[in-house]
Amino acid sequence: MLYNLTAPQFAKMLQNLNRLLEKGVEHATHKKFEVDVLLNSRLAPDQFNLIRQIQIATDTAKLGMSRLTGKEAPKHEDNEKTLAELQKRIHEVITYLHSFSEMDLKDATTKHISHPRWDGKYLLGEEFAFQHLIPNFYFHITTAYSILRHNGVDIGKKDYLGELPYKK
Amino acid sequence: MLYNLTAPQFAKMLQNLNRLLEKGVEHATHKKFEVDVLLNSRLAPDQFNLIRQIQIATDTAKLGMSRLTGKEAPKHEDNEKTLAELQKRIHEVITYLHSFSEMDLKDATTKHISHPRWDGKYLLGEEFAFQHLIPNFYFHITTAYSILRHNGVDIGKKDYLGELPYKK
Repeated sequence: MLYNLTAPQFAKMLQNLNRLLEKGVEHATHKKFEVDVLLNSRLAPDQFNLIRQIQIATDTAKLGMSRLTGKEAPKHEDNEKTLAELQKRIHEVITYLHSFSEMDLKDATTKHISHPRWDGKYLLGEEFAFQHLIPNFYFHITTAYSILRHNGVDIGKKDYLGELPYKK
Repeated sequence: MLYNLTAPQFAKMLQNLNRLLEKGVEHATHKKFEVDVLLNSRLAPDQFNLIRQIQIATDTAKLGMSRLTGKEAPKHEDNEKTLAELQKRIHEVITYLHSFSEMDLKDATTKHISHPRWDGKYLLGEEFAFQHLIPNFYFHITTAYSILRHNGVDIGKKDYLGELPYKK
């Protein structure tokens, strides 16, 4: 269950993020401004801009999965400046997420998860996933969405959620 | 596991939302404006304001849990205009969420979940929870956070995440 909740779902949301960014490009093209304006936009002067939101969303997914499983994550230097560089990063993290199987997560729920900022303390894997990783991941995807929406990009809830596996 | 991921975690996030709103009140008091200004703020002209974000966040939690379990959710008329009315709604939904136990969710993962907008189609409970309910719930909590942050309220990631059960 922890697998379905994380690796494939995070990959799906990052794919949705890619589509949100493409709609940002369409908007910038239509309105005749550089897409970099969107990438450098933020919702508050002391909050991160869209570039950093994308870096953190991808980091949250890759480092979270790495902490839960011990599987080494792709490294990024956080020096992306262009949309192409950000899309490359998103793509690399999606590829990493697709490399997981249910077996990789079989011991994850009870694993002791630590974090450089936690001063030697730890959370159990399930606590980490449910109370830290998942809320953080959706926070940064939603904030990226909000920066685009705030700047007039024509996106809605369906772009955020992506396709759902409806059955008849 | 689906229990830990939903009822208590949603209750915790709604409690965090309450604290974010209290920080909004402090900010409004300090800057000498009515807190109603924040409640009626939005990030884009065609996106819902803070009142509606709070209504939808609470609805997402209560109706999601009701769909997964069949347990009747408290009803709200969506006519809240004041902070006190919104806090009452949040409190009622937290009380409802606290009424759940693991047993209530024992058949939820394979339950067929339908939705008035889904045209007779359904999702399995786990698909609904992981791909619809959870992403939607965090979307509206984060958007409420962003509206406050955008308007200068002094909040950060720790206010959003709340307390974590760190161990030594």
